[in-house]
Amino acid sequence: MSAQNTKAKIGILGASGYTGAELARLLIRHPRVEIALLTADRRAGKPMADVFPQFAPYVLPTLTAIEGADWQALALDLAFCALPHGTTQKVVADLMARAPATKVVDLSADFRLADPTSYARWYGHEHFAPALQKEAVYGLTEVYRQKIKAARLVANPGCYTTCAQLALIPLLKAKAIDPDEIVIDAKSGMTGAGRAAKEEMLFSEVSEGFHAYGVGHHRHMSELDQEFSLAAGREVIVSFTPHLVPMNRGILSTIYVRGLDKASPEDLHVLLAKAYASEPFVHVLPFRTMPQTRHVRGSNMTFVGVAADRIDGRAIICSALDNLTKGASGQAVQNMNVMLGYPETMGIDQVALFP
Amino acid sequence: MSAQNTKAKIGILGASGYTGAELARLLIRHPRVEIALLTADRRAGKPMADVFPQFAPYVLPTLTAIEGADWQALALDLAFCALPHGTTQKVVADLMARAPATKVVDLSADFRLADPTSYARWYGHEHFAPALQKEAVYGLTEVYRQKIKAARLVANPGCYTTCAQLALIPLLKAKAIDPDEIVIDAKSGMTGAGRAAKEEMLFSEVSEGFHAYGVGHHRHMSELDQEFSLAAGREVIVSFTPHLVPMNRGILSTIYVRGLDKASPEDLHVLLAKAYASEPFVHVLPFRTMPQTRHVRGSNMTFVGVAADRIDGRAIICSALDNLTKGASGQAVQNMNVMLGYPETMGIDQVALFP
Amino acid sequence: MSAQNTKAKIGILGASGYTGAELARLLIRHPRVEIALLTADRRAGKPMADVFPQFAPYVLPTLTAIEGADWQALALDLAFCALPHGTTQKVVADLMARAPATKVVDLSADFRLADPTSYARWYGHEHFAPALQKEAVYGLTEVYRQKIKAARLVANPGCYTTCAQLALIPLLKAKAIDPDEIVIDAKSGMTGAGRAAKEEMLFSEVSEGFHAYGVGHHRHMSELDQEFSLAAGREVIVSFTPHLVPMNRGILSTIYVRGLDKASPEDLHVLLAKAYASEPFVHVLPFRTMPQTRHVRGSNMTFVGVAADRIDGRAIICSALDNLTKGASGQAVQNMNVMLGYPETMGIDQVALFP
Amino acid sequence: MSAQNTKAKIGILGASGYTGAELARLLIRHPRVEIALLTADRRAGKPMADVFPQFAPYVLPTLTAIEGADWQALALDLAFCALPHGTTQKVVADLMARAPATKVVDLSADFRLADPTSYARWYGHEHFAPALQKEAVYGLTEVYRQKIKAARLVANPGCYTTCAQLALIPLLKAKAIDPDEIVIDAKSGMTGAGRAAKEEMLFSEVSEGFHAYGVGHHRHMSELDQEFSLAAGREVIVSFTPHLVPMNRGILSTIYVRGLDKASPEDLHVLLAKAYASEPFVHVLPFRTMPQTRHVRGSNMTFVGVAADRIDGRAIICSALDNLTKGASGQAVQNMNVMLGYPETMGIDQVALFP
Repeated sequence: MSAQNTKAKIGILGASGYTGAELARLLIRHPRVEIALLTADRRAGKPMADVFPQFAPYVLPTLTAIEGADWQALALDLAFCALPHGTTQKVVADLMARAPATKVVDLSADFRLADPTSYARWYGHEHFAPALQKEAVYGLTEVYRQKIKAARLVANPGCYTTCAQLALIPLLKAKAIDPDEIVIDAKSGMTGAGRAAKEEMLFSEVSEGFHAYGVGHHRHMSELDQEFSLAAGREVIVSFTPHLVPMNRGILSTIYVRGLDKASPEDLHVLLAKAYASEPFVHVLPFRTMPQTRHVRGSNMTFVGVAADRIDGRAIICSALDNLTKGASGQAVQNMNVMLGYPETMGIDQVALFP
Repeated sequence: MSAQNTKAKIGILGASGYTGAELARLLIRHPRVEIALLTADRRAGKPMADVFPQFAPYVLPTLTAIEGADWQALALDLAFCALPHGTTQKVVADLMARAPATKVVDLSADFRLADPTSYARWYGHEHFAPALQKEAVYGLTEVYRQKIKAARLVANPGCYTTCAQLALIPLLKAKAIDPDEIVIDAKSGMTGAGRAAKEEMLFSEVSEGFHAYGVGHHRHMSELDQEFSLAAGREVIVSFTPHLVPMNRGILSTIYVRGLDKASPEDLHVLLAKAYASEPFVHVLPFRTMPQTRHVRGSNMTFVGVAADRIDGRAIICSALDNLTKGASGQAVQNMNVMLGYPETMGIDQVALFP
Repeated sequence: MSAQNTKAKIGILGASGYTGAELARLLIRHPRVEIALLTADRRAGKPMADVFPQFAPYVLPTLTAIEGADWQALALDLAFCALPHGTTQKVVADLMARAPATKVVDLSADFRLADPTSYARWYGHEHFAPALQKEAVYGLTEVYRQKIKAARLVANPGCYTTCAQLALIPLLKAKAIDPDEIVIDAKSGMTGAGRAAKEEMLFSEVSEGFHAYGVGHHRHMSELDQEFSLAAGREVIVSFTPHLVPMNRGILSTIYVRGLDKASPEDLHVLLAKAYASEPFVHVLPFRTMPQTRHVRGSNMTFVGVAADRIDGRAIICSALDNLTKGASGQAVQNMNVMLGYPETMGIDQVALFP
Repeated sequence: MSAQNTKAKIGILGASGYTGAELARLLIRHPRVEIALLTADRRAGKPMADVFPQFAPYVLPTLTAIEGADWQALALDLAFCALPHGTTQKVVADLMARAPATKVVDLSADFRLADPTSYARWYGHEHFAPALQKEAVYGLTEVYRQKIKAARLVANPGCYTTCAQLALIPLLKAKAIDPDEIVIDAKSGMTGAGRAAKEEMLFSEVSEGFHAYGVGHHRHMSELDQEFSLAAGREVIVSFTPHLVPMNRGILSTIYVRGLDKASPEDLHVLLAKAYASEPFVHVLPFRTMPQTRHVRGSNMTFVGVAADRIDGRAIICSALDNLTKGASGQAVQNMNVMLGYPETMGIDQVALFP
């Protein structure tokens, strides 16, 4: 796949949702990729521009239904799966059985939990593809880059969880913070809620207001538990509250932590800055400078800031990313690049769109 | 003042800012009030409608400069002071010296801190009117109603602090939560930042984004320290982080607390519900129902919700209010009503404007 | 009904939509009204606060289905009908047959067109209640006040059409503008599109963008044709293009007109100012001052401005109102006041909420 | 300059404004460009990331003051001038005198009007660089491509005028519409107003509202007059009204026209479609499909739609572009590409960012 002039054949399953559109936006200009398949069951037969008019000027495959797809004949090099939870497991299992050479980056939550018991508890049913659940590699690129290189199926992380993990994993690994005293107060733009037509997502229900949701019982917690516990080498359960911001894109996590062994806020900052010194998509700001979501909009960047709380020994960390880019489709392309042996930043090095 | 048909003569000092406009909005329709004075130094001589066109249909006094005001001749029953920090102390001291019969509700932070040392530490200079600082009554109506009745000078609380205090004071008083383990993650609409023309408040700098500010060192903390310590009967210092939401009005505080003596989240809910059972402007929602700022917009209401965190013994409390109404001018009118012997809800019983 | 201390028994049919909520907001504080009935078929059995949490602090009837309503027993003095097009005709016909003493203000488009042929052409079917269509009085209060007083059924005007008519009808009546050369470019906030869950109304589809819709063939045109032709005494057909603005409330109409018989823009301004000199809800701004929707938000006001175009003999008129208030529910209450003999401004004299 | 591997040395004068930032966004990823100079007088000495934090991850020159610039030594291949009106003329005259080999793309209005009399009338003073005013080439790339190739100084068009011209010039040239009957109702996002800290641009003054401004006398009209008259071969004066939309980016022009010689709306559509068939940055939508600004956000695209008005012989045309990209900095880079012999789409072929 990595010969200089060949293009990988790519499919986007679920192209009529926001993460599907974001994949298309990035892949249209990716120099080593050809979009060979776009599926959208309810819009099958329509041009992509009917569903997302911004694509009107570009030549793209007509939307098709997944059902009819002949995975073997399509011979995709890689498929992005941007389908709803549940459906995903069946589609991916079928695809990977029929086209063993096709790699998959799955953007749903279906393959993120490695433990079948944990999956069943949070999702209320047994996993439909337990073998694949085991095989899947968790796709936080900065942490699992080596495994992703060899993976056939990558479970792309959630947007909230990417944002919180990038801020905390180096600190947990270094045992620099108290794993029992982490509070994550997270705020997300509306595209994180998807494109399904629900009353509570209407413009007039959302604009000019702010609220928390899923308080005490949000599904993303299981993903945080898994990865934080792995990083800390012991069980970690955090307080986590998601909120909705009247904006399209962006997540800001405000994270309250306490240093261990006299680790000061400055120490935590140094730790993070070192951990990400050579990472292209994580940028640690100067101590006390805090990130804003608008400054990463449309880019694959994560900005991280650290400040001292006025209570001794406590620090406040903020991390910001674009939920559709680094929080979903951008990281998915980053993973594709790793899986196909391309330069990791290829096609996803856009500068943020501000204002 | 409380004879059925008389109207109190009222002045608004600083009528060209947002809290001034909000006072005008409420007072124009208040049945027992006559707006006799509107000041705005830089706009002196202009009609109020030049500064806030929404008032074009109403007859209001022309804007004047404070400097020329003859407080004695004006014989105001009550003046609302909506001036910037610092200026306020001098104006209020002068006004109250010349017109001893005029009561004052001050919306700045100048008279909120009772302790001169604390004031000097947070504001970097000695108080200009230490006697008045001592005399001033802190104007969180639900807590200090009796003192406000007799007060000549009321220090109207801040918007962030009103929101957090209404959620926490009954719990601190009841010693139901651990005062050392309180995290307040607060989010405010943009009107809280006032009307001064600053680059960082421009529409294009603010819309479509979210960020924290003043992390670790926001001035409102001193006000929280004072009132929480009084309520708890011991020193209380909380973690507090303010954020800006791309919306005009509203504050949501997400508060992380831990029950003491096995107080469960449900217990905390019961405590709050009882504390506010007969309060007209604080409404405790059913357990696990969380408030949204949009549902109190333009009203003097505070909505409070309580839910259990998934970590045993911890609860998450959200409180929501409109920063310009209950968080500033609405509460100021509420205090005026108490000070003048009017029904407490008079003129501020508007139903929230949603959507 | 007009005895000082009695309250009219009022019903809101269709209380789960935005115009229903706006009616509730206004009527809760109306001193001569008791809300006796709230219907919402799909939410029947639920408290109003489940559907619109801003009403949580108020005592209101539980939502019921229309089907079971015993109109005779209910003995409503007046029912507001805020139901979708089509349904309305049947419900109103049934209600008025069973409870002849109950007056109706209908907020749908169903009874606005007096001509059955015109109705059938625009809506694609015969009217279901042709007798009532004939009886209904068109509810633009400023124009039809006398007829409304005696009406049993009032067809409340559309939001776009109220905004354009208030700007143009005095000019057409005075034959001061060329009826063949009117261009109305109208812009509306999103609540005008209602609360139905549609993909194109989602926050992320709407925010940060602007577009025209229904270009060349919007149904509201029939209502404009009817009323403009009546005012001009001859057939009038205008160019009319509606647009959607990423905001909740407000309509601005930018109207391009040409003076007849040398009527200058200043002359047109004088004409409008005189026409509305004593109207409580239409305010004509000084010549060349143009209105902004934000300055009428939440109020029943219409602001009108006139300026000269740089092309001789042409003027540009802008009118602004809140589509949910003067453009729908506020005007509906204004009509109720007229029908029940109450002061016309009762309960709808709120000052605009800005910012 | 066009050797495959060399990079042009580029300067951005006025890098602290929005068009400056947009230039930086595009040029950072332009493969044939090196940003050698960034000026911002009041921020001189600071890193670009202090002024626009989105650039924190990139290596860029420190901001400098224009005054000290040694144009000869800098030996820029091309300078983008994004300075305020007035200042521009002096800076550009000085720069071009000292560094005759440096080409200039000016984003201000200073060199757009070819006629000194017209300039003096609209701007109230004689032009400071009349010789350059004469030399400057108007930079609407699609129309003046050949002249731009050879130009030393290009006057980049305004955002409103680019949007209206792309929709109308082919029709005026073809004499397909009546030049005396054109109404342009234009709506712009807030970045068009720049980054200067003005009260009327504050978030809370802008959000949740809509209004017209500069009614009857907007300066952009002179630019429209000039270009429309040139295209039509006779004097053309249009009605033009700009409005502000509570969004960051985007302009939509709704244009009312009348066909000449029985040209139908369909005919006008065919004319436009043909005119732009091979243009990379103007896309004519199918007849009756109307553009939305959100679908060109962040891209250099202009979308144009045509529909029939219901009045015979009249058509409604909508055109949409991003005011900072095709309306300013994107078109400036497009012009740079033409001037330096690069492929015209190089570095500005980003797909629109939606949602």
